[in-house]
Amino acid sequence: MKATIVTIGDEILIGQIVDTNSGYIAKALDRIGIQTHEMLSISDDKKHILETFKKLQNQVDLVIITGGLGPTKDDITKKTFCDYFDDVLVEDQAVLAHVTEIIEGFYKRPINQLNKEQALVPSKGEVLFNKMGTAPGMWMKKDNTVFISLPGVPYEMKYLVDFEIVPKLVKEYKRPYIIHKTILTYGQGESMVAERIETWENNLPSFIKLAYLPAPGRVRLRLTARGENKDVLENAVKENVDSLSKIIGDIIVGFDEEETIEVVVGKLLAAHGKSLATAESCTGGKIAQMITSVAGASAYFKGSVVSYSKATKVSLLDIDSELIEKNDVVSAAVAVAMASNVKRLLQTDYAIATTGNAGPTSEPGSAAVGVVFIAIATPNEVVVSEFNFGQPREKVIDRTANKALELLQQEILKSTH
Amino acid sequence: MKATIVTIGDEILIGQIVDTNSGYIAKALDRIGIQTHEMLSISDDKKHILETFKKLQNQVDLVIITGGLGPTKDDITKKTFCDYFDDVLVEDQAVLAHVTEIIEGFYKRPINQLNKEQALVPSKGEVLFNKMGTAPGMWMKKDNTVFISLPGVPYEMKYLVDFEIVPKLVKEYKRPYIIHKTILTYGQGESMVAERIETWENNLPSFIKLAYLPAPGRVRLRLTARGENKDVLENAVKENVDSLSKIIGDIIVGFDEEETIEVVVGKLLAAHGKSLATAESCTGGKIAQMITSVAGASAYFKGSVVSYSKATKVSLLDIDSELIEKNDVVSAAVAVAMASNVKRLLQTDYAIATTGNAGPTSEPGSAAVGVVFIAIATPNEVVVSEFNFGQPREKVIDRTANKALELLQQEILKSTH
Repeated sequence: MKATIVTIGDEILIGQIVDTNSGYIAKALDRIGIQTHEMLSISDDKKHILETFKKLQNQVDLVIITGGLGPTKDDITKKTFCDYFDDVLVEDQAVLAHVTEIIEGFYKRPINQLNKEQALVPSKGEVLFNKMGTAPGMWMKKDNTVFISLPGVPYEMKYLVDFEIVPKLVKEYKRPYIIHKTILTYGQGESMVAERIETWENNLPSFIKLAYLPAPGRVRLRLTARGENKDVLENAVKENVDSLSKIIGDIIVGFDEEETIEVVVGKLLAAHGKSLATAESCTGGKIAQMITSVAGASAYFKGSVVSYSKATKVSLLDIDSELIEKNDVVSAAVAVAMASNVKRLLQTDYAIATTGNAGPTSEPGSAAVGVVFIAIATPNEVVVSEFNFGQPREKVIDRTANKALELLQQEILKSTH
Repeated sequence: MKATIVTIGDEILIGQIVDTNSGYIAKALDRIGIQTHEMLSISDDKKHILETFKKLQNQVDLVIITGGLGPTKDDITKKTFCDYFDDVLVEDQAVLAHVTEIIEGFYKRPINQLNKEQALVPSKGEVLFNKMGTAPGMWMKKDNTVFISLPGVPYEMKYLVDFEIVPKLVKEYKRPYIIHKTILTYGQGESMVAERIETWENNLPSFIKLAYLPAPGRVRLRLTARGENKDVLENAVKENVDSLSKIIGDIIVGFDEEETIEVVVGKLLAAHGKSLATAESCTGGKIAQMITSVAGASAYFKGSVVSYSKATKVSLLDIDSELIEKNDVVSAAVAVAMASNVKRLLQTDYAIATTGNAGPTSEPGSAAVGVVFIAIATPNEVVVSEFNFGQPREKVIDRTANKALELLQQEILKSTH
């Protein structure tokens, strides 16, 4: 079963917003064994939309469309659906009651004509009731292709995917099995890893595909197995992961696909009943933000001091101003002091500290652009490392935050074993 | 002149990573008057790539492809280029020297066969020298369509777009004019705004297109004018913006397309020589992270206290524990105390404080999920507002951070006028 995901909206085609919806939908489909054949972004243009529908008709089993369902003139998906399916719009009473409740109950004003039109749906379609907003989703079929239209607002789209579309697809369609297994390696580049596993890679069965997903400092290897027999797939994946582990066991650090480093670190801390604080200079709160994006973080995260000036380091982090003068604010000594002081002040088991120059410019006599110090305080000691993450600024901040969490993970594993 | 942007990679089609490259390229093309017709993500599959090239041949003037240029077996773009253009790969000496320098100079190991293959390029193409990495870009032409292949690593892709492709396109092609003007409105929903400007919208000339870009609490209106005569376009856009301002001047807050709220606030603070600190509970450092993502933020941002526990609020923010017990940690009183204390402790002119329950769960007797208090301390007073941002967690954090910066902007405008 194959799907194509279509995003409608000029704002995507001029680069004003990035489409994150398609990725969410693709992941949800992949989990239930439906392969995304293509993702496509097209303009808010009736002719363009109709041509796209025609092209996809019978090429794939499923077309999922997001965007163009708002109340304004540039939102034309609904009318274009009617054209394509030779249908008319009719008022849906349940949707109208829901829209009225949102506008009058939440926004405290009478509904206007444009709001009322949100309750119009194609007569031949199935309405996907949108509890999260005013625009309903639609499910329509022509020949062998199902066309589903969803609002572009991410949390409305996510609700409809999780609670309407996926359950319906699981119930109504037979799907093949897809198994992914991701092997996370640290410390060697893509070409080094590839060289080491060449023979293994050449001997993979034809129904298993290998992908290399390199990121700064690490490479994920993803195995994808597709077929009809779940047991055969699972056994083949397991066997090949086992033989791979014998070849590059020294650089494999994990197998979990979905888990980001902040989730992994959070689980480790929670499991061992340990707590964490951060003192951030060049990362400006990024590490705290990553940690607190995980629900339940308050169980192990006590807080952060984002010290974006020398005065803040002295007053809030209790750092000796002479230490800063003597070593420079971007130095191993200051990173160590930040980590140990924030750990003491917030009474935690672990602490992370960052100080560096994220760029784009540097003052004469101070640290070069891209230079970063990361210190990790553990119950027993403080370790500090120096890096040069180059440019641009966003990359320095991202890499520092990710590297700091990786270093923390290693230290937790060491000190809890 | 029309372009289609193609991303190659199974990791995108299974939703493992989000494609941000296409948006960057589209924005760069749009600035020089080249329209992006479609964006397309396809699999690492030779047949799929060749079919796509064939389909796009002569349908658009420009095909820009990212991904599939790495050193490993799943990177097949280069070989597929050779197939499509009936070409062979030859070793480029300048690229080989560059790859050798990176591997031997930076990674401190001898180059291997896979690294060497990075220096192979199609003989008929033009090499786009990649200073930022080992994979060169390629520029090839067939009939009326130019095919450009770029590495998928974002900062390598960005470098080649900015320093190789855009200058070459500007030099070699005649392009129409595209003018965008974005009008930022606050405080009224999409359907309300649409109702107010209906007549104006109906009278827009055919070469000007209007789009509504709603986001929580605000609507951007984007006018796009396309044509041959720059003066005609500019005058028409100006006239229509003027007449629009007469209709909804009360809700228009700005006209700048690119500027995010953190950039706007940063400019305001810098212009008035004022400083800022934040005390963040439910936003967990998100506001500090947004502010410090802007280069030069250290001129006005002193730091943040991310107080993710009561103890941290008491010890670092000097908040009376009785005040917390009496009012609950999520309360107007605590928000006010957080804002005024962090302003005093970090000696700034302004401060933001957030406290709320981002969810997904709430304790009995404490604040409901989604409830947030935001306090803004100015040189003269502290103002506090209550919100309910519902769920999910990421939305509560995002909306709180954005709303806090908007409230700060309004307070700065008030107190500096």
